[in-house]
Amino acid sequence: MQVYINPAKQTRTALLQRPAIDATALQEKVKQVLNDVQQQGNAALQKYTQLFDGVTLDNFQVSDAEMKEAVQTVSDELKQAIDIAIANITTFHQKQVAAPELIQTMPGVQCWRKSVGIEKVGLYIPGGTAPLFSTILMLAIPARIAGCKEIILCSPPGKNGLLHPAILYAAFKTGVTRIYKLGGVQAIAAMAYGTETVPQVYKIFGPGNQYVTCAKQLVQQQGIAIDMPAGPSEVCVLADETANAAFVAADLLSQAEHGIDSQVLLVSTQEALVQQVQQQIAAQLQQLPRQDIAQKALENSTAIVVGSMEEAIELVNEYAAEHLIISCKNEDAISDQIINAGSVFLGNYSPESAGDYASGTNHTLPTNGFAKAYSGVSVDSFVKKITYQKLTTEGIQNIGNAVIQMAEAEGLQAHANAVKVRLQNL
Amino acid sequence: MQVYINPAKQTRTALLQRPAIDATALQEKVKQVLNDVQQQGNAALQKYTQLFDGVTLDNFQVSDAEMKEAVQTVSDELKQAIDIAIANITTFHQKQVAAPELIQTMPGVQCWRKSVGIEKVGLYIPGGTAPLFSTILMLAIPARIAGCKEIILCSPPGKNGLLHPAILYAAFKTGVTRIYKLGGVQAIAAMAYGTETVPQVYKIFGPGNQYVTCAKQLVQQQGIAIDMPAGPSEVCVLADETANAAFVAADLLSQAEHGIDSQVLLVSTQEALVQQVQQQIAAQLQQLPRQDIAQKALENSTAIVVGSMEEAIELVNEYAAEHLIISCKNEDAISDQIINAGSVFLGNYSPESAGDYASGTNHTLPTNGFAKAYSGVSVDSFVKKITYQKLTTEGIQNIGNAVIQMAEAEGLQAHANAVKVRLQNL
Repeated sequence: MQVYINPAKQTRTALLQRPAIDATALQEKVKQVLNDVQQQGNAALQKYTQLFDGVTLDNFQVSDAEMKEAVQTVSDELKQAIDIAIANITTFHQKQVAAPELIQTMPGVQCWRKSVGIEKVGLYIPGGTAPLFSTILMLAIPARIAGCKEIILCSPPGKNGLLHPAILYAAFKTGVTRIYKLGGVQAIAAMAYGTETVPQVYKIFGPGNQYVTCAKQLVQQQGIAIDMPAGPSEVCVLADETANAAFVAADLLSQAEHGIDSQVLLVSTQEALVQQVQQQIAAQLQQLPRQDIAQKALENSTAIVVGSMEEAIELVNEYAAEHLIISCKNEDAISDQIINAGSVFLGNYSPESAGDYASGTNHTLPTNGFAKAYSGVSVDSFVKKITYQKLTTEGIQNIGNAVIQMAEAEGLQAHANAVKVRLQNL
Repeated sequence: MQVYINPAKQTRTALLQRPAIDATALQEKVKQVLNDVQQQGNAALQKYTQLFDGVTLDNFQVSDAEMKEAVQTVSDELKQAIDIAIANITTFHQKQVAAPELIQTMPGVQCWRKSVGIEKVGLYIPGGTAPLFSTILMLAIPARIAGCKEIILCSPPGKNGLLHPAILYAAFKTGVTRIYKLGGVQAIAAMAYGTETVPQVYKIFGPGNQYVTCAKQLVQQQGIAIDMPAGPSEVCVLADETANAAFVAADLLSQAEHGIDSQVLLVSTQEALVQQVQQQIAAQLQQLPRQDIAQKALENSTAIVVGSMEEAIELVNEYAAEHLIISCKNEDAISDQIINAGSVFLGNYSPESAGDYASGTNHTLPTNGFAKAYSGVSVDSFVKKITYQKLTTEGIQNIGNAVIQMAEAEGLQAHANAVKVRLQNL
């Protein structure tokens, strides 16, 4: 961990710099796979699943029998934990449903918005070292609440040609409609274009490696919506003298274990605390199965000590962290001043991992500074808000002249005429 | 207008096809301009403004004197019309502001969302044949309501080196913070990267030609958010025997006059109505100053007669129009069945042009079928929703075991540990 004590103001932006991500270098390779799936459908899916996942599958869709077996395999303890998480995530997201509200902007002019679930959505869950079933909860629960009719899930098969039982249990409990054993670029392609067995979707969600990220960017240019741009996961801890060094160290390590590219930032007004946190990290790191990964991530991480809480807040807003933990005595007052962050954790008993799994908030969040412009996933991400207007004859009489004036000033006579023919008819 | 009477089901998707848009062909040219502005700042802006707009500007920013003069130049009638539109748009969008709502997902676990305006946003208003001041209202009003602090506007200068007075009046009235006489790719580059005088923004909004569209796509890949993908404007009219042929014709023409690539679709259960509409179009077209443009757009447009309202609604949802006018006797019941559209106009007295200018709804809407996954612009487009959570010691005790179980099942021990260190401390 690089420690900077009261760095000069003009150097701070450089300290907050994330490593540049450039997925465009992969574009040619990724385009090839996308094109093959678009043109050859299932045959291409089969070819790439053999090549990249090392298994030959005749049928990509998870069968009822596979699902049944998986549900039996998951331990009761894990099931109970998942069920608690589902309950909390559902409670939190349910409140995001907006009922239409009729607004009369002028007498006889009524306007409103209606939220409609995106009819077909695709969720991608990466494979690799850990079965990220928690991400299924974070995507499928809001999708169901939004009213999406078709919720497709793709995740790469293991060497045994199966998905992890916890993945299937989470998908089963959250109402995913079809599950496919497909990974990587070929999964994104299947959902973007559709194949003989995989339905085409209108929006694709979920994390992935740099190939998946590049594929999502490319299909977005072709009109398929995506959840948000991707980047390595990150946490920023803002801590004053009331913070607990052991807790802060544990939080930083929980981010660092994600991957060697994970970003970890500690901002504090207390030099002594930063030292204690470093000691705690060293001690706790020894106990971790993923210590090699965490160690590497920490080598590229930063602690910054500043002279005042005002400066600290400024830094934190400039960084725009995916996860921001505020372990400070005035946590509520400080949180009011936060303008850029994905999800914020307040006080000493709100670790990031609570939100990662079960507090109820969503863990699919903007990384890489994208929190300056993007929100995390919510029910909003799974709906379109269609606007409506209905004018009575009184309404068109009240608004008509304004429309005619503006249309004519923009040189659009036919726009004006659409009002005039109606006024003439009254 | 191509008319299809009861076309076979399997041919319908082909009839609804829009022309393919491929902005990637322009990428090399557009990248050159983007790179030049990124590297050379104002000098590049000057070079390209000379080259593309034919004027030499020492100062791109609109001065107070220019603004003052413009405000005096706009007629009182137009000012009143704009003021009515501003009032209605403000009333409608004001209701989109979401107050934070505290949700207790479990005892001791409180979660909420806070909407924060995106700090810096950029609005692009194209030049060309008409001064599209109405689009300023549609972007700047929700930006202000959202609480965006810096609202930049770029629009290409005329040959006289000035912006149209109505553009300046609209910007003045809606609280745009800085206005620059910059157009095309160089304007998008200036807002995406910042220059000596133009501040960098986090999200760029507004319509534009294919170069602007391509530039927005490219900067989006570099992490600058954009409002939505672009495409030619379009209207679909769904009409039964209660529709007024003259009104329908006027609505179709108001879309057709936008540009030769405008998309116009009429869906009806009544063959006789379609014939009457065609006659009305022929008659009204003669009166229009932009009849050449409208004529060309109509040549590529389509009318489809189907046997039942159910089939008609299916077609309309499949098309996913930017603007959908429902001129039918059961307009409310039909509108309940609409799942894909940008903005919907109900009944015989709700022309699209009412929503284009002054009803209160937003006119920046998803075209090209993007309404299947995207919403139009609203206050939502200008905020990030930051999630918060605060756990008490009771909260971490209630949720702790679920988090530990799930983290361990995902193989993430440090995530579990962030909870364990806290539980051990109680």
